[in-house]
Amino acid sequence: MTRPLVLHPDRLFPADPGMRAIARSLYARIKDLPIVSPHGHTDPAWFARNEPFSDPANLLIVPDHYAFRMLMSQGVPLAALGVPSVDGSPVETDPRAIWRVFADHYHLFRGTPSRLWLDWVFAEAFGIDEQLEPSTADHYYDTIDTALKTDAFRPRALYERFGIEVIATTESPLDPLEHHAAIRASGWHGRVVTAYRPDPVVDPDTPGFADNVRRFGETAGVAVADYAGYLAAHRFHRARFREAGATSTDHGHPSAATADLPPDEAASLYLRVLADPTPAEAELFRAQMLTEMAGMSVEDGMVMQLHPAVFRSHNKDVFARFGRDKGGDIPLPGEFVRSLKPLLDRFGNDPRLTLILFTLDEDTYSRELAPLAGHYPALKLGPPWWFHDSPEGMRRFRERATETAGFYNTVGFNDDTRAFLSIPARHDVARRIDCAWLAQLVADHRLDEDEAHELAHALTYDLVKAAYKL
Amino acid sequence: MTRPLVLHPDRLFPADPGMRAIARSLYARIKDLPIVSPHGHTDPAWFARNEPFSDPANLLIVPDHYAFRMLMSQGVPLAALGVPSVDGSPVETDPRAIWRVFADHYHLFRGTPSRLWLDWVFAEAFGIDEQLEPSTADHYYDTIDTALKTDAFRPRALYERFGIEVIATTESPLDPLEHHAAIRASGWHGRVVTAYRPDPVVDPDTPGFADNVRRFGETAGVAVADYAGYLAAHRFHRARFREAGATSTDHGHPSAATADLPPDEAASLYLRVLADPTPAEAELFRAQMLTEMAGMSVEDGMVMQLHPAVFRSHNKDVFARFGRDKGGDIPLPGEFVRSLKPLLDRFGNDPRLTLILFTLDEDTYSRELAPLAGHYPALKLGPPWWFHDSPEGMRRFRERATETAGFYNTVGFNDDTRAFLSIPARHDVARRIDCAWLAQLVADHRLDEDEAHELAHALTYDLVKAAYKL
Amino acid sequence: MTRPLVLHPDRLFPADPGMRAIARSLYARIKDLPIVSPHGHTDPAWFARNEPFSDPANLLIVPDHYAFRMLMSQGVPLAALGVPSVDGSPVETDPRAIWRVFADHYHLFRGTPSRLWLDWVFAEAFGIDEQLEPSTADHYYDTIDTALKTDAFRPRALYERFGIEVIATTESPLDPLEHHAAIRASGWHGRVVTAYRPDPVVDPDTPGFADNVRRFGETAGVAVADYAGYLAAHRFHRARFREAGATSTDHGHPSAATADLPPDEAASLYLRVLADPTPAEAELFRAQMLTEMAGMSVEDGMVMQLHPAVFRSHNKDVFARFGRDKGGDIPLPGEFVRSLKPLLDRFGNDPRLTLILFTLDEDTYSRELAPLAGHYPALKLGPPWWFHDSPEGMRRFRERATETAGFYNTVGFNDDTRAFLSIPARHDVARRIDCAWLAQLVADHRLDEDEAHELAHALTYDLVKAAYKL
Repeated sequence: MTRPLVLHPDRLFPADPGMRAIARSLYARIKDLPIVSPHGHTDPAWFARNEPFSDPANLLIVPDHYAFRMLMSQGVPLAALGVPSVDGSPVETDPRAIWRVFADHYHLFRGTPSRLWLDWVFAEAFGIDEQLEPSTADHYYDTIDTALKTDAFRPRALYERFGIEVIATTESPLDPLEHHAAIRASGWHGRVVTAYRPDPVVDPDTPGFADNVRRFGETAGVAVADYAGYLAAHRFHRARFREAGATSTDHGHPSAATADLPPDEAASLYLRVLADPTPAEAELFRAQMLTEMAGMSVEDGMVMQLHPAVFRSHNKDVFARFGRDKGGDIPLPGEFVRSLKPLLDRFGNDPRLTLILFTLDEDTYSRELAPLAGHYPALKLGPPWWFHDSPEGMRRFRERATETAGFYNTVGFNDDTRAFLSIPARHDVARRIDCAWLAQLVADHRLDEDEAHELAHALTYDLVKAAYKL
Repeated sequence: MTRPLVLHPDRLFPADPGMRAIARSLYARIKDLPIVSPHGHTDPAWFARNEPFSDPANLLIVPDHYAFRMLMSQGVPLAALGVPSVDGSPVETDPRAIWRVFADHYHLFRGTPSRLWLDWVFAEAFGIDEQLEPSTADHYYDTIDTALKTDAFRPRALYERFGIEVIATTESPLDPLEHHAAIRASGWHGRVVTAYRPDPVVDPDTPGFADNVRRFGETAGVAVADYAGYLAAHRFHRARFREAGATSTDHGHPSAATADLPPDEAASLYLRVLADPTPAEAELFRAQMLTEMAGMSVEDGMVMQLHPAVFRSHNKDVFARFGRDKGGDIPLPGEFVRSLKPLLDRFGNDPRLTLILFTLDEDTYSRELAPLAGHYPALKLGPPWWFHDSPEGMRRFRERATETAGFYNTVGFNDDTRAFLSIPARHDVARRIDCAWLAQLVADHRLDEDEAHELAHALTYDLVKAAYKL
Repeated sequence: MTRPLVLHPDRLFPADPGMRAIARSLYARIKDLPIVSPHGHTDPAWFARNEPFSDPANLLIVPDHYAFRMLMSQGVPLAALGVPSVDGSPVETDPRAIWRVFADHYHLFRGTPSRLWLDWVFAEAFGIDEQLEPSTADHYYDTIDTALKTDAFRPRALYERFGIEVIATTESPLDPLEHHAAIRASGWHGRVVTAYRPDPVVDPDTPGFADNVRRFGETAGVAVADYAGYLAAHRFHRARFREAGATSTDHGHPSAATADLPPDEAASLYLRVLADPTPAEAELFRAQMLTEMAGMSVEDGMVMQLHPAVFRSHNKDVFARFGRDKGGDIPLPGEFVRSLKPLLDRFGNDPRLTLILFTLDEDTYSRELAPLAGHYPALKLGPPWWFHDSPEGMRRFRERATETAGFYNTVGFNDDTRAFLSIPARHDVARRIDCAWLAQLVADHRLDEDEAHELAHALTYDLVKAAYKL
């Protein structure tokens, strides 16, 4: 006996009948709004080439660190899940075998957002009506594999079916952006824009940093032997990215530290980090570059995003065998108040700057981030990030940030994902949780229902369009 | 079409009908209890002179950093809101123009406690029955302005109408307390007491510190060239404050650090901080002074309050143009366990000391503050402070502190405000949230309903009177 | 008029009728499952000797720091509660007098888990039907005292009545484990196992450390003059503990720091900590020993528990007069990401290691612990610990940890107590809160009801048996 897979229409709404009715009413008016995805990690080649996805395992499991890290934590080797090795060690390559291992362990996702997203993909995207378990593994595999071979499951068709209005990818300045060019040249109406993520040429701890900077200068046609040239190369590439639709930059730093050095100190620091920087010099350079990037955003209008404080590739063996982004990134305590001050002293009151802050340290929501965003014109709060892109995570964000920052210093939802098929499910979870939170405010008589409708629309659509200038 | 302004009688109560009924019943018995306001920042001159408030903008917007910081965060210049500059730059002076700007942006407060307080002031204090929005701005202005010109809206009449039993203001030792003297001399029955806030003569980082100390000694008639004289001056001024009704002291320090130096080291530190102290010396002196103040509290019975860990005037430009207390104070991480140990080693078990602790770092509620207050006889927990004086903030406090500290190591509510008209609204929010929390405990069968009634009375009235010796 | 004492069958279940019905249904199937208590502090002598407990005060108040710290925080001297002094100062010895003081202050426990546990003991264990208050103090005392003199209240009878399947005590390597031997020799079927807690021979800051190490070697018959011998003594005692049923080790360190030194450095550090270590050397030695213990666990299969980051005996006077474990232990901020890396680099992916992590810093649940446990095969999350072993504490744990770590990286419930009679009450609170949380997931349509039944069984019984290898 298999168990039915049903997505209940009231999922994630409050259990109290009065609140539930309010949530339903709010959700009904915004559930079909277009998806605006201002920050994520889908592959632009998908939309450029519009080729079919290969198979269920390589679409849904092999690239998804949320998925394979959970099985790994319970003793399933990454190799059994087909995660490609970087050291040449053998891994499973049969997608059906990978799929079966995944199905054997699907119960591990109970209570997690991955379960919500995947069940949506199974039920809504593929029309499956039984739950995933060992006995249904092959049925799932065959159903999904068959669908993927149809035109309806090519990337552009899914983009359209999902109601996406615009989606941003994230590229390094070393990226030629040829896929974005191909998309525009193709005549397809989909709007796939890039975002400028200069970490590989900003973070001296990046492997190959000096070589990256050299190529960064070459592709810009600018001599980067000195700091002025290096900054000029940034301006060149930022303009190039804007031509590919970018309206934002993104910065993934080990901390939120910023600095505002005198020009000559910054220039000499640049030369030192190109050689063999100390950890303190590397940190100071990253800090200085955040302020430089803010200054360039004031000039060119690009919205700046900061995703700080993650210990990347914490698992030594996994990093050695499988490389980065394998579920072993672990959050660190956040600190924004002292860290951001140099940048804010320069640009915090400048209406031309928008700096969107993200955190994985939820204690900073009420302690630091909401007070900062509720004061500085340049600051906005990004949505709950990564581990907190989940019903409870979203609820905590609204509960802790709203009273001090209000709703209008937030920027709607980011799916931040490379799992393309889960995008509608992620936005749907955010919409439902926002409606549930608004319903509670209405039920508590903290908000009128007509205001809640306005806010539901704003949180879903208006704020993200405005904040990201899309 | 304007929208009606209605304060729902069940606001902030649980949505569940069973819990709501319990909350209503609890609230019905305590809603009309007198307001005891043991810590705040109203101006004693109001009650001494009993002059009418000038106009709506200068009463409700210009002095309220909760209000103007939110508009500023969305790009409205402080100057447009009439915030007085300290650098001579021009600001809007027409109160009606200020009011209109505020009305244009009132939607920003959705979901914030300011909205709850202001709507109460509009509806209850002024009897307005339409919501504030651009089209009602002038109606609001005229209604409030007219009311303010009547005797019913003079400070003493409002004090009486609000059911205030006692209210504490906060003064520096350099204050002559002439307004408190005038109130007592006037024969008016209202009880307006002061509180001893010695930061300007305790914190070497205060601008003009040495000069403050000099005046502090002069007004005490004590030579403050050495530490013994300086401490004697504190004893003099503490006695003077007690004569003006003070039952408490208050300390706003950058951290909760305390120290207990040998007398000769403290004496030589005092001489150093009068000259040109290092940051470490300034911190150590503040730390030492908390322990000295605790010792004096043991002698004279004054209740001690500690409000630590705020980065004051974080916004450089705003501080330069508008001075302090302009919404740019940002919380820092809190630490109490190691910080308070020197003071607690001396006085933590002394039944004559009451030290009330506040925090803006909510993570410390369950980790540090509740375990400390649930053990040391001298320690009590202050209510949620500042950014956390809000429905969600209060709920988090009760959820995180009660199970370890119990209810009886808390001290009721502080409005901590200079916004006089909002005082009843703030106490009402606290009463409602406490009743909602107690209703949940009753509904969960963690507490009997008769106990909840007793606790609701204690949280509203008894605990604050006892803890502050009022 | 006394008030009735009734344990409501729906206590701690959600108030919403729909959710409550689900919680009831979940709870009905697991409420009578046996108690598996894998970590605690009951005295094995109780079960070895099976003598009656002496009297109500010495059973329920004198040894319970949850109980007496709360009265102390409100000014009741510990001496009045019969807490034995270590400095020879007199304390109350009349158990009825102690009991009356306790009854006079029982209202202090409103809203605390102690109230839930004690009311369960009063109502369920002793059949009392009136609440504890001054007027019922003697009735309580007499009822309990009479019961304690009957065979039904001897330790083994209670073990059986409580439905305990297995209970672990915690002993030092210096303990001869004679009580465990006596239990096994007695032919009684109860399963009382020990756990290896080597802090006294691992933490150089322990008073008498060098002497402890000397005895540790002597009892092992191993020369501990060098590090190899010291490690061999650990292996000896671990084997001895396993013979007494131990399946786990436990480590109570001031921080979660781990180290993985080269053997010669570890060996020379050992010699230094035996002499007069610096604080840094002591910390490094503890850190190194966690990794050594993990290595031995890989060899011998013992499950490792880490309880870090408590400031022990914070209250100087209480420590001087009454010694340790007197309610003055205060949590410190937690840090796991950098601290655990050396150990995890060695053993984090080893399927033979299980390291169960506990914290008192709840901010680390979502920031550090769930991401670590949701990745590393060796890591599991212990249940909410100590101050957080409470309804709200358990709810926060599930809300913050589940979405990232899932349910299957948690290990069921630990009562962690020396208060034997409260054990069923503590497990019952955990079962109720877990059922309430699962009911919410079902009501939110995040989980199917049949899955919730499976999970309720797993959280109550299966996970703890598997994780602790019991």
